[in-house]
Amino acid sequence: MSPEIEKLADKLLLKIRRRPGKTVSLTNLGQTLKAEPDELRSALILLKELGYKIRKQKNTIKFVAPADSLTDIEIGYQLKTRVIGRKIYAYRSVKSTNDIAAGMAQSGQPEGTIVTAEEQTRGRGRLGRSWHSPPGCGIYVSIILRPRFKPEMAPGLAVMTALALADTISEVSKGEIKIKWPNDILIGGRKVAGILTELSAEKKRVEYVVIGVGVNVNHKTDDFPSELSSIATSLRIANRRKVGRVHLLKRFLENFEKEYRRYRKGQLAASRRKIRRYSSLLGSYVRLRFGNKTVEGIAVDIDHTGALIIEKDSHRRTITSGEVTVVKDRG
Amino acid sequence: MSPEIEKLADKLLLKIRRRPGKTVSLTNLGQTLKAEPDELRSALILLKELGYKIRKQKNTIKFVAPADSLTDIEIGYQLKTRVIGRKIYAYRSVKSTNDIAAGMAQSGQPEGTIVTAEEQTRGRGRLGRSWHSPPGCGIYVSIILRPRFKPEMAPGLAVMTALALADTISEVSKGEIKIKWPNDILIGGRKVAGILTELSAEKKRVEYVVIGVGVNVNHKTDDFPSELSSIATSLRIANRRKVGRVHLLKRFLENFEKEYRRYRKGQLAASRRKIRRYSSLLGSYVRLRFGNKTVEGIAVDIDHTGALIIEKDSHRRTITSGEVTVVKDRG
Repeated sequence: MSPEIEKLADKLLLKIRRRPGKTVSLTNLGQTLKAEPDELRSALILLKELGYKIRKQKNTIKFVAPADSLTDIEIGYQLKTRVIGRKIYAYRSVKSTNDIAAGMAQSGQPEGTIVTAEEQTRGRGRLGRSWHSPPGCGIYVSIILRPRFKPEMAPGLAVMTALALADTISEVSKGEIKIKWPNDILIGGRKVAGILTELSAEKKRVEYVVIGVGVNVNHKTDDFPSELSSIATSLRIANRRKVGRVHLLKRFLENFEKEYRRYRKGQLAASRRKIRRYSSLLGSYVRLRFGNKTVEGIAVDIDHTGALIIEKDSHRRTITSGEVTVVKDRG
Repeated sequence: MSPEIEKLADKLLLKIRRRPGKTVSLTNLGQTLKAEPDELRSALILLKELGYKIRKQKNTIKFVAPADSLTDIEIGYQLKTRVIGRKIYAYRSVKSTNDIAAGMAQSGQPEGTIVTAEEQTRGRGRLGRSWHSPPGCGIYVSIILRPRFKPEMAPGLAVMTALALADTISEVSKGEIKIKWPNDILIGGRKVAGILTELSAEKKRVEYVVIGVGVNVNHKTDDFPSELSSIATSLRIANRRKVGRVHLLKRFLENFEKEYRRYRKGQLAASRRKIRRYSSLLGSYVRLRFGNKTVEGIAVDIDHTGALIIEKDSHRRTITSGEVTVVKDRG
């Protein structure tokens, strides 16, 4: 497909997308877009291949439904944010959207730039046996931030992101939605989404932060390898129906922007009640590993910096990161 | 470590690195670099931690040996290239240097920019079981190119890179060094290096190419998982001694630049004799898979575009990419 046709398809889409259901004459479109009938036809074929539903009748077309593809045009269409997602780089398949975003951040891309992929290949290679999801099932997005705060404020961004993500998932999904501190989202105890925060900072200044988010959206049970099926799930499995990925991503970007604005003002102070309610750990006896160390205790709170507070023998410890295992559930 | 000390260490290194073995007074250095004794001491500690051998005696220091670390200062030091590696981004650990380089290329970084890493994590994650090499053993480098040629010329870049890499490895290693078309380097039949080329192009124009190279340099036999040990090797295993990674990378960048200049003039025409000599496939009966298709035949040549020519029943086919299995060795 030539780049000219791709550009024409973009323009055509922008024209008809605003008036779903309305019949538009191809002759008029050709005049407005300065395109020959042949070119228009090719552009329409391309849009149909991308998943758009467009009905053609004689010399008219009618926009019926958009495609659920993570393309810049779909993600950017009527996106209600001011900063996050104002610049979109949409890839089909990459190893790591976070790495691409890091390269972009290093090269000066502004705050709010996002990198998306339909598929993360996770370095398959000839011997790489690690699992990866089929294309079209997941959402992989990385957001570049350039916050003007000290590096100490960066760890809380994972919890802030988890909050925005849990809120977004709650909008479209039933099931008990929980945040497993600091960076997993669970539905019914199984992982449905994860967050990976990476930052580049000097002593007193954050240069950039890349926040990567992966969500299992439309995986079926047998899309997961057997060793994962008891601990992972998808929104489709939890809801017994497909969930729109573009809609979900846009709502996440909008919720993320809202929470990020709050976070810059007062860290997590304004959101603590919600965070506590979402937490899968509070009240449980947990074990934390960081490096070679292990700490145990009852998870009693998450503070305004995003740190987990655990208590043992009337002694409280503040944990800023680590991998948690629940030893004994609350109650 | 504060960024000021890191900068001072860079400057200090540039001062003493040029005159190995020469005793330099710390008082003089302090004056030249406008640094307090305390700051100089911290900078020296940092350099030692990075692996530099610097002898301190009373109020003098002597540069003994550089570190074999993939840092921008070491890679760039007396690098004899004009374009390749003139801009260096050195990372410690990433998932994919190619993805970082793609992000940078997308954001306008110039031809010749390189991204290096001491370690590629290949998306480990909790269930990712794919193998990754221990830090300090390998070389991972991605090169950004912005060639002014048509997309048809891009596939040959993998073979061109393989040639530069095979030449470089031959300079430091014994053993039979071969190119397994199109993008693996073998020593004694085992894989020692691999190449991954990725490109962004429109119909008539290459926007950018990212060429990623991974070399197993200082792995010991038990650094490889058991399922790899019969098919993978390292320069250290092949030579029974450690090989300098910085030196190897610099020589590769220099050889790469030379071959790339040739390639732009006449593709692989000037290098075909060498490529044929390095080829592990020519003369063998091979099987090629691309997509769902399989083609068999005797590998008879590699043409000036980098394509493999295979022959069966007096019929020749030109193959531009695919995964090859040797069915029957030549002879």
